[in-house]
Amino acid sequence: MPLIIERRACKVASRRSPCCIARYCPVRIKVQISGWYFTFINRPALGILPPENFSERLKESLLSVAPKGLPQVMTMACGSCSNENAFKLIFMWYRNKERGRNNVTKEELESCMINQPPGCPDYAMLSFMGGFHGRTFGCLATTHSKAIHKLDIPSLDWPIAPFPRLKYPLEDFVKENQQEEARCLEEVEDLIVKYRKKKKIVAGIIIEPIQSEGGDNHASDDFFRKLRDIARKHGCAFLVDEVQTGGGCTGKFWAHEHWGLDDPADVVTFSKKMMTGGFFHKEEFRPNAPYRIFNTWLGDPSKNLLLAEVIRVIKREDLINNAAHAGKALLTGLLDLQARYPHLISRVRGRGTFCSFDTPNDATRNKLITIARNKGVVLGGCGDRSIRFRPTLIFKDHHAHLFLNIFSDILANFK
Amino acid sequence: MPLIIERRACKVASRRSPCCIARYCPVRIKVQISGWYFTFINRPALGILPPENFSERLKESLLSVAPKGLPQVMTMACGSCSNENAFKLIFMWYRNKERGRNNVTKEELESCMINQPPGCPDYAMLSFMGGFHGRTFGCLATTHSKAIHKLDIPSLDWPIAPFPRLKYPLEDFVKENQQEEARCLEEVEDLIVKYRKKKKIVAGIIIEPIQSEGGDNHASDDFFRKLRDIARKHGCAFLVDEVQTGGGCTGKFWAHEHWGLDDPADVVTFSKKMMTGGFFHKEEFRPNAPYRIFNTWLGDPSKNLLLAEVIRVIKREDLINNAAHAGKALLTGLLDLQARYPHLISRVRGRGTFCSFDTPNDATRNKLITIARNKGVVLGGCGDRSIRFRPTLIFKDHHAHLFLNIFSDILANFK
Repeated sequence: MPLIIERRACKVASRRSPCCIARYCPVRIKVQISGWYFTFINRPALGILPPENFSERLKESLLSVAPKGLPQVMTMACGSCSNENAFKLIFMWYRNKERGRNNVTKEELESCMINQPPGCPDYAMLSFMGGFHGRTFGCLATTHSKAIHKLDIPSLDWPIAPFPRLKYPLEDFVKENQQEEARCLEEVEDLIVKYRKKKKIVAGIIIEPIQSEGGDNHASDDFFRKLRDIARKHGCAFLVDEVQTGGGCTGKFWAHEHWGLDDPADVVTFSKKMMTGGFFHKEEFRPNAPYRIFNTWLGDPSKNLLLAEVIRVIKREDLINNAAHAGKALLTGLLDLQARYPHLISRVRGRGTFCSFDTPNDATRNKLITIARNKGVVLGGCGDRSIRFRPTLIFKDHHAHLFLNIFSDILANFK
Repeated sequence: MPLIIERRACKVASRRSPCCIARYCPVRIKVQISGWYFTFINRPALGILPPENFSERLKESLLSVAPKGLPQVMTMACGSCSNENAFKLIFMWYRNKERGRNNVTKEELESCMINQPPGCPDYAMLSFMGGFHGRTFGCLATTHSKAIHKLDIPSLDWPIAPFPRLKYPLEDFVKENQQEEARCLEEVEDLIVKYRKKKKIVAGIIIEPIQSEGGDNHASDDFFRKLRDIARKHGCAFLVDEVQTGGGCTGKFWAHEHWGLDDPADVVTFSKKMMTGGFFHKEEFRPNAPYRIFNTWLGDPSKNLLLAEVIRVIKREDLINNAAHAGKALLTGLLDLQARYPHLISRVRGRGTFCSFDTPNDATRNKLITIARNKGVVLGGCGDRSIRFRPTLIFKDHHAHLFLNIFSDILANFK
């Protein structure tokens, strides 16, 4: 058992290591290390047998970065499970609203066992064309980014609204873009009404702050504020999927903080950079009984330990502001390249370091990615012809300039 | 960074620790520990950036216990994700069978983006009443154990067959039980035909070797062999969910190994005791393109390290045979208690240490569990009035006798 080596070694290390947080006290070190050790080699059934200090772990990790107005948190093992369970939370909340003070009926209890209404009601989540929310069955019914994700998998008849397709540069197309966003919002309301008419109730709306997998599609802060209002007006929950945008890369810890919502989102899901999946939610969305949102592992406490350390480093090194700053350098440079190479680069866009641009077509995009890789730069694609940036949080101005110099040469020599 | 303490300490420990597997060689230790260290503190996107040695990790962990005939393995973050992705694997396999040599059509590619057939075909998984396969949307459509899992969550119209309800002791009800199993198998075939008539194709059948959450419901090996034959006859995939039964507790590493199938199951899912979720499958179920079965994390390599060590201990200490042996002691003792307290204990059943019995009702069951807990014995409930045993693999005969003595006293004094 290799890990025993490490545990035994701690007593020695405690008197040597200058980075020891337990201030050279061998007894405390032993307790601390043995705590970490057990966290990494155990896999508790978190919902029923959490480690004794788990609420502390949540406070120092997830709860220390909770979006304003969302004091409740659940951990999950991955992004798909986070969205699946957020949908369930929303459907339970909606049903309880409809039920009012009435009890669950015998008919509901019996019909749900065979997948039928009223126990399994005909509820839906409204999603947007181009969105990506995961690959399990519930998530996949709200994912509409690439055919390869969805082909051959049975799905649900849930409403799909258009996501605004903005024209760039934004300042040259203010009116067109406003009209485009208004058109999409109108369609959202129409779909909610249309689906209710056919007895399929839209219980919630799910959206990404930036449609990532679908091609880094942005919308204005105003669009999201209005969408939030529509959700409230129709009694739907408003779910913001920050699985890809959360964690600081947009220049705020959560991308939706840019919007300045009056009324917070109802549920915010996360994963990836957060080391663990899960979601935050408003108090009123708390399940009305234990074990309604539950599975055996519900994540992994060792990931909360890692996240706590990540958050400490983010704060100590001011990495959120750094992302805003470095992102500005990257975006400015990309706009400059766009002006010089408009036949290769268009629709430059970004928030923080979460930047991207379009290329003329898939073939050109892939060729650019390959050439860059051969020069030591790893770029990724999204949508059908976009190149996207997802640098780490320690990406600084000088990394942006380093990249821009290399990429400028690539574009100058591109045939 | 607390973990640095451990890494620094290794060099010292290497010359001291007698349990060091690297035989006191400081250089090898350093390499080993640094490998383990990185495994535990990193969270790779496993599908695209697996650690260099990940295929070795799979060989020494999951592939070393692969069920016969299932050489392929995928890891997943939890049991629900395992079943969700196994369903997807089955649907893709079925569609490719139907498609033959034809290419994917434009209509399929377009319709799948809006959740419609033919791109999202009207396929179904057939499941059994009383089964439990997880709580995400696809899984939940096959879960029928308790209303609390399913209430308020929209579902899919997928066929649900009855699971045999056997009478005990089995030797006294041979004919009745055979009839009961035949009735259920007939219903399976009827449902496949009936659903095909309404253009809903049963692409696969999912079943647990022992319905666990639903009340530790057993069926005979013959029942499962015949079910496997029905699946093959109708061209459906046969998916065995070993999330709860896998890992040795039934006296075989996989519970379905008791059946002696001529033709292996097509897909076997696992999680829980295996430390990581995932599934094994036949070669012909391999997806026809990359990224069709995929998500960011696809599990966590550190759990494969833990599993490799667990498997080493299981083999070294012959724990599978131990489970068979200790299980026999437990079952014999329970049968004896049933004979003495038939008003409190009935339908004693089990395989390995995976034992259980029925109590007269929910209230008596919960009272028995509480009294036992106050005497230091942790028991669990399943179904509506069963008590189930899920001891660890190091549970031995003397633990069984220890329990039986305590429980015998509890029953003698029960009012």
